[in-house]
Amino acid sequence: MRISQLAERTGVPVHTLKYYLREGVLPAGRATSRTSAEYGEEHVDRVRLVRALVEHGGVPVAAVRRIVGALDAPPPSRHELLGTAHSTLAGEDPGAAAPAEVVELLRGLGWCTWEQGPFVAELGRAVEAARAAGAPLTPEALRRYAEAMFAVAEVDVELALGAPSPEEAMRAVVVGTVMVDPVLLALRRVAQEAASTARA
Amino acid sequence: MRISQLAERTGVPVHTLKYYLREGVLPAGRATSRTSAEYGEEHVDRVRLVRALVEHGGVPVAAVRRIVGALDAPPPSRHELLGTAHSTLAGEDPGAAAPAEVVELLRGLGWCTWEQGPFVAELGRAVEAARAAGAPLTPEALRRYAEAMFAVAEVDVELALGAPSPEEAMRAVVVGTVMVDPVLLALRRVAQEAASTARA
Repeated sequence: MRISQLAERTGVPVHTLKYYLREGVLPAGRATSRTSAEYGEEHVDRVRLVRALVEHGGVPVAAVRRIVGALDAPPPSRHELLGTAHSTLAGEDPGAAAPAEVVELLRGLGWCTWEQGPFVAELGRAVEAARAAGAPLTPEALRRYAEAMFAVAEVDVELALGAPSPEEAMRAVVVGTVMVDPVLLALRRVAQEAASTARA
Repeated sequence: MRISQLAERTGVPVHTLKYYLREGVLPAGRATSRTSAEYGEEHVDRVRLVRALVEHGGVPVAAVRRIVGALDAPPPSRHELLGTAHSTLAGEDPGAAAPAEVVELLRGLGWCTWEQGPFVAELGRAVEAARAAGAPLTPEALRRYAEAMFAVAEVDVELALGAPSPEEAMRAVVVGTVMVDPVLLALRRVAQEAASTARA
């Protein structure tokens, strides 16, 4: 199909598709003349993914470029998959040292994690910011939040392991992580109502 | 203290403090002359809160205005607290109809929630967007995510109930919800590593 038909199929305007092409998040079509190209079903899927990441996931275009790059070239072994997916999600962040409280929390939970990893540093910054704003985030509350998020992560890992191919497993981790974040935050708010009613 | 001292104490530049004053998220100081005003400790706290919400929580200034308004005038009964906090967080969103799958999920979980509420509609949109992007979000995965977020919400509700005053309870719900979101998302990523290692 031509670019105008790709626009019609996906509901994304031609000028946005040209922007995606320039930014390298949508692969070029098969050139049919000096000024036109042919697009296929894989382009329809890719446009839908990019639009979802940008519009609903709030992912910046540079991060989308890393994500689609990882989807196009997943690591051959499932063993390396999560590491590659996490590097993709974390970007260039070198990972600052995690505060002692966070390191202690992870050890206390018995989690085998890389304490120098970018998300441990991010966790430290987020805890500090929440406390600075006056959130009553006690160490006990933090531990219970961590246990609940472990249950979330177990579902994440099972969905990735159940994927039929490395490509699908990579998609499950990367897209599943970014796009399920808003689902979890909406569930939290709805669950607050339910938990509050249960106590009343 | 003068505005320059407030800037020094909080590390927020004077021009940003003036912007906060203009936007109504920082109350005016006590006027000491036609051009200068005196600020107190309550202004230091407020500036720290506003900066944390804007910089770390990514909250738009219009939403910050609603949040500080709710903190300044919490409802007299704890019964109304969560409703007021949620209206504050949801803003003007009229709340579209939730998709049948989400309504069925909530009923299946036995959650007493307002099915027309803004967060149920948000949940429906987030589920749809995640699936459109290719996230493998099965109904069973969604149910398990919901159960994990109920455990999170129970901690949220306990922290609010344990607050010594309606003001503190309001702060626990509103600030705790917005500022703990990034903590939960970082925990999810760190937990993925731990859950994946546990399975290897």
